[in-house]
Amino acid sequence: MNTYADSARLVMERCDAIGAISEEPDRLTRRYGTEAMRQANAAVTEWMRAAGMQTRSDAIGNLIGRYEGASPEAKTFLLGSHLDTVRDAGKYDGPLGVMVALACVERLRARGERLPFALEVYAFADEEGLRYRTLYLGSTVAAGIFDPAALTREDADGIPLAEAIRAFGGDPARLSESARRPDELLGYAEVHIEQGPMLEERGCPVGLVSAIQGQIGVGVTFIGEAGHAGTIPMAMRHDALAAAAEFTLAVEALGQQTPGLVATVGRFQVAPGASNVIPGLAELSLDVRHPENSVRLEAVSQLRAQTEAIVQRRGIQLDWRAGKGQASVACSPRLMDILARAVAEASYPEISLASGAGHDAAIMSQITEIAMLFVRCARGISHSPAEAVAVEDVAVAIEVTERFLTLLAAGKK
Amino acid sequence: MNTYADSARLVMERCDAIGAISEEPDRLTRRYGTEAMRQANAAVTEWMRAAGMQTRSDAIGNLIGRYEGASPEAKTFLLGSHLDTVRDAGKYDGPLGVMVALACVERLRARGERLPFALEVYAFADEEGLRYRTLYLGSTVAAGIFDPAALTREDADGIPLAEAIRAFGGDPARLSESARRPDELLGYAEVHIEQGPMLEERGCPVGLVSAIQGQIGVGVTFIGEAGHAGTIPMAMRHDALAAAAEFTLAVEALGQQTPGLVATVGRFQVAPGASNVIPGLAELSLDVRHPENSVRLEAVSQLRAQTEAIVQRRGIQLDWRAGKGQASVACSPRLMDILARAVAEASYPEISLASGAGHDAAIMSQITEIAMLFVRCARGISHSPAEAVAVEDVAVAIEVTERFLTLLAAGKK
Repeated sequence: MNTYADSARLVMERCDAIGAISEEPDRLTRRYGTEAMRQANAAVTEWMRAAGMQTRSDAIGNLIGRYEGASPEAKTFLLGSHLDTVRDAGKYDGPLGVMVALACVERLRARGERLPFALEVYAFADEEGLRYRTLYLGSTVAAGIFDPAALTREDADGIPLAEAIRAFGGDPARLSESARRPDELLGYAEVHIEQGPMLEERGCPVGLVSAIQGQIGVGVTFIGEAGHAGTIPMAMRHDALAAAAEFTLAVEALGQQTPGLVATVGRFQVAPGASNVIPGLAELSLDVRHPENSVRLEAVSQLRAQTEAIVQRRGIQLDWRAGKGQASVACSPRLMDILARAVAEASYPEISLASGAGHDAAIMSQITEIAMLFVRCARGISHSPAEAVAVEDVAVAIEVTERFLTLLAAGKK
Repeated sequence: MNTYADSARLVMERCDAIGAISEEPDRLTRRYGTEAMRQANAAVTEWMRAAGMQTRSDAIGNLIGRYEGASPEAKTFLLGSHLDTVRDAGKYDGPLGVMVALACVERLRARGERLPFALEVYAFADEEGLRYRTLYLGSTVAAGIFDPAALTREDADGIPLAEAIRAFGGDPARLSESARRPDELLGYAEVHIEQGPMLEERGCPVGLVSAIQGQIGVGVTFIGEAGHAGTIPMAMRHDALAAAAEFTLAVEALGQQTPGLVATVGRFQVAPGASNVIPGLAELSLDVRHPENSVRLEAVSQLRAQTEAIVQRRGIQLDWRAGKGQASVACSPRLMDILARAVAEASYPEISLASGAGHDAAIMSQITEIAMLFVRCARGISHSPAEAVAVEDVAVAIEVTERFLTLLAAGKK
């Protein structure tokens, strides 16, 4: 029988192998529907089959491996994550969750064990949304909430999504048939790198995800008056950059004062942008997240009021474009309780944290109960080739997921 | 005899005509040594000759028109400004000064009047430095302070300055021969649009320039740590943008607190610059100007100290690259006194102001006494197609310059 460490080494090797499959020679980029995605799916299909799973692809190209339960009429528990990446990505964001799920199935098979439910491992075909600039193409199809309006979106080469789906072996006309029926499902669990520094900070290999934070994005433009840096006295200026700087510090201050809130100005451009010209325009992005929707929405409305005051005082115009945002999603208390017991049984500290990033689990929560386990990653870095996880922590993730499935099975007997 | 209004209308027509000569079809751009500059010089040469001036070009291609004085051995007083422009320029920054000088000579000639000194009108071939990213190519040659190291600089097409000088009919090996001998000169006077809002604010058509402000440019880079906007808690961030925002407001505050100081952050870029990533890098420009060198230098050193405190508190690295800067240049009290009398004789209010922008006059101050007269421009706008001056104000500039020359001549008799 393989140890958890053996399984973890195999997971790391597989993440390396999948991480070498890229659209670009010098960096890892694997967008939906590309030849790189096809190759990644082919490799994972082989591993799934070798683990005794039946594999299939759904109408958008999600790869699904099924490991039957003890009885054929049993319900299904889902595991998974995604195989697509951002541009210049790391190897673990997405693939790690697929490989850990696969390792758990392999271990069951090695023991000749069947659970009282079927297991299906989803390797979602798109979570990052890099190619069509819309997130979660894979899980929204599985959850039956895919928006058909997206089918006419075009990628950078002008290829519509519908065509990319066909080229990837899918069928844009039959996406709704790939939606899972809630009454067949027992839940969905996802293992993912934390993408943040909290587990490392606390010295914990894995963390229990309490909720996936809600998020809202706002496009903010300050329209002042450009002018010669040498000739316009300070008192006569309407400096768009100075207004935007004041806004940026207000965002930071509110984030610091509000427990659990993260508020970020990430994009920031000024025009004309010459050293001897007072900026007449500043355009920036605001990103606000909190596990509780009310706190997040209150923060945005407070920032908007502060911004109105800034622009009024400075004689500057404001354009404020709030996006729809995403509500926060709580993980299932029942499943998280089981996951916490699994962590405790394995003798690791139970640390609970909210996910700052979005995940397929948030989408799957629309049709079934969800659980999420975070794995510590080096310095909280993700979406970068510097993404790193320790093989020891992966072993813990495998052990905890296995114990979780065992506890879940015991509850079903 | 033409009225000042007649002469002003002609000046406006000529500015229109020269403003139509551009390298680009849809906007005014006239860089050193281009076909557009050649055409502009050709047109002005015609007008100078028609006004009874002898014309020549010096070794860098400055166009010079000479109107002899009453006696051949007399010294020379210089008038002028530049004919090159920035990209997407207005019609008046530079050409207005040349055309007003030309109009004054035409009026002398129409009266058959010779002054006790020769007049030379310089149409400098490069002040804005757009093509070779180094200012004052024209006036540094006339003042004998041209830096030969600039000859190997290349434009965007890889053409070295030396080659551009030859192609423009000049001679890079004989630039020093075009330097004026101080003992031949009586002074240099330049008429220029204000490029600022002060004259409009005070309701004055023209203004007396007390000094050309010193300037210093600093490149400032804040190096923090990029990270996921959703997963890095506020307390663990090293946000380069937030540090740069704090710096920007410190710059503005110091400018507002220090009389006569203008301090500007004009260039401002962040990286990676994505809405969901905390900026790890912010790169910006600081521009500080004041009529007194000591105030300007003190301001920069105070800002540097504040910035060190900002980055230390935030755990961020700082790169501070201060340029050499330009010392402020006082206009000649003697000539400005005469110019003030000319303004008073013409019954306009005597308003004195420092120039926030640099001018050829600052360079010419190295070899002779200088005087400058500003002309009110609409809303202080310059370096823009929206640059505008009123024909009535141009008439005042002509009258004042003519009276100035007359007073100067009276002092020489």
